[in-house]
Amino acid sequence: MAKIDRMEVSVHRVPLPQPVEAFAAGLMVNFDMVMVRLRDTDGVEGLGYSVCHEGQGPAIGQIAGGSMRPFVEGADADLIEAIWHKLYREHHYAGRGAPVSFALAAIDVALWDLKGRKLGEPLWRLMGGFSAEVRAYAGNIDLNFPKTKLLEGASASVEAGFRSVKMRLGRPSLAEDLDRAHAMRAHLPDEIEMMADANEAWRVDQCVRAMHGLKDLGMVWLEEPIAPDDLAGQVHLRSLGLIPLALGENLHTVAEFTTLFAAGAVDMPQPDLTTCGGYTPWLKVARLAEANNLPVMSHGAHELHIHCMGACPNAAYLEWHAFDLGRYMEQPLTVSEGFATAPERPGHGITFDMDALGSMAV
Amino acid sequence: MAKIDRMEVSVHRVPLPQPVEAFAAGLMVNFDMVMVRLRDTDGVEGLGYSVCHEGQGPAIGQIAGGSMRPFVEGADADLIEAIWHKLYREHHYAGRGAPVSFALAAIDVALWDLKGRKLGEPLWRLMGGFSAEVRAYAGNIDLNFPKTKLLEGASASVEAGFRSVKMRLGRPSLAEDLDRAHAMRAHLPDEIEMMADANEAWRVDQCVRAMHGLKDLGMVWLEEPIAPDDLAGQVHLRSLGLIPLALGENLHTVAEFTTLFAAGAVDMPQPDLTTCGGYTPWLKVARLAEANNLPVMSHGAHELHIHCMGACPNAAYLEWHAFDLGRYMEQPLTVSEGFATAPERPGHGITFDMDALGSMAV
Repeated sequence: MAKIDRMEVSVHRVPLPQPVEAFAAGLMVNFDMVMVRLRDTDGVEGLGYSVCHEGQGPAIGQIAGGSMRPFVEGADADLIEAIWHKLYREHHYAGRGAPVSFALAAIDVALWDLKGRKLGEPLWRLMGGFSAEVRAYAGNIDLNFPKTKLLEGASASVEAGFRSVKMRLGRPSLAEDLDRAHAMRAHLPDEIEMMADANEAWRVDQCVRAMHGLKDLGMVWLEEPIAPDDLAGQVHLRSLGLIPLALGENLHTVAEFTTLFAAGAVDMPQPDLTTCGGYTPWLKVARLAEANNLPVMSHGAHELHIHCMGACPNAAYLEWHAFDLGRYMEQPLTVSEGFATAPERPGHGITFDMDALGSMAV
Repeated sequence: MAKIDRMEVSVHRVPLPQPVEAFAAGLMVNFDMVMVRLRDTDGVEGLGYSVCHEGQGPAIGQIAGGSMRPFVEGADADLIEAIWHKLYREHHYAGRGAPVSFALAAIDVALWDLKGRKLGEPLWRLMGGFSAEVRAYAGNIDLNFPKTKLLEGASASVEAGFRSVKMRLGRPSLAEDLDRAHAMRAHLPDEIEMMADANEAWRVDQCVRAMHGLKDLGMVWLEEPIAPDDLAGQVHLRSLGLIPLALGENLHTVAEFTTLFAAGAVDMPQPDLTTCGGYTPWLKVARLAEANNLPVMSHGAHELHIHCMGACPNAAYLEWHAFDLGRYMEQPLTVSEGFATAPERPGHGITFDMDALGSMAV
């Protein structure tokens, strides 16, 4: 039996290629990454991480490296459910949500990676194995771009191999949002799918108006148009049947998805393993979605999500997120003809350029 | 216009008078306290704090003193709603829950205290003013006590002035729980009210059995018998009508209470200002409860809650929590004939022995 011998936690502040804006987040220049590296008593290693907004990393690192560490070091590396459950319970007070879920995620991913490396199996096979190929979409963050740059960004995504492109909504006036969305649909070739993310920009009444202005664009979904915890509002908006609704990046526990599904409040759930506690709860949400005849999508961290998405028959769209870490990976994920392919390397198969990331440590 | 000139954040590890156990928390020897002290440009000061389990304080202190600080220092001290909203929005990602809510709470309480001191008003009057006298109950934590000590603890609470006494449930067998609860009812004088807190000990099916075994004791409520985010389970248990259900200390946002009330899932909501983001959201939950014809109770931090409870016509029971900080206060709250009385000192009226607390800084 191999035990966890050592746990290292580090926080990195990573620059974005260019400043990008989304409604709830505002303008972003950097993002934070919390990395957990584990080694077991046989010398097998595992690496996990979660990403968050600039400034939020240190508290997440404090939770992972502080109050969680005693329950990880010395634990049986095989018993991921047992470790996860212990960490969750020990942090149930001042827990059951973010940023505790972000710390849990980094540890859980490292445990899964370690298990995959130990067994010589890629995670997408280890977790179930459905298909290495997963449809991906470009999750562009572009609320601050002038219209010309907005359309150029979408074209760049198509040239990069995407067949589905997301844009942001939430400009000061609905008229401007509608103008930009209609311009996007006219700009993109017919065969390219389009979706939009309002990042909590609207009240319910504003969203109803926006949906009527957007409904003829044939968008695959409208994402987070209202506050993510307005369950009654979400149920109402979905009942209109105008545009499929997507939601999930800001839900931090499996139970939140249980309530969401039971209420019939979402068409396209988007759990994010880095925000909901790792692969372990993400897979439960995905299976719960399947049991409810719903697809599952991902949010953020595409190099991690390619694996759990590849394990699910109901996987719909992998988000290719603008918080890009591929620049610092030896073998970054690629997209072609609208699909990304999970690697066959053991674990999640990610090897970082630690010199580059080390220089960004905070 | 006075601006916030300085914000100090400190974390303290406070010993409990004796080790106490509750089901979800396990055995506790210390608890952590995160303190925020503000001073405005006129020199008026405000003090806030939240309490949590041992080891959780540093991350909360990191959030308050790190990523929240820039939005507090320099802000107009009068605009509590504006500051609260800004902090909530800036931390919406990796936020919307604990421990972000705990950090928000300490800052929000300090802002309210500052406002009260500036105006020379006690908070219970400033927040609405209903009654300085609030019914209190002894929130004893005693799951680890042998039966004799359990009953002695309840007697001590009655001698201290309480007329309502809570005990803990969640022993390894239901038979033992029922034996202890029936012994408690037989031990207490008829006029003393009794309630019980299972701290998430049971599955729904176990709770149904427990309720049938407890229903003849006339308990005022049964608290947190199941996981606090099992909405469907809570609705089912309440529908049985066997014992009134209490819940709330582990809900961290107003929206969670909105969903709880809309589902008809609770009889006696127990928001805790230190876990849900401060007086500002607590008052919204209390008014929402009133609008739903529900009482409002408090959890924890009785010296803070006496004020917001004193502002509410639907205030039912103030919990006198075992995480006692009165030992370190110049004028601790007292209870008499089952009631506590809000002080007339400005703000919340709490002055700590900072030498004593300083020696516990971590």
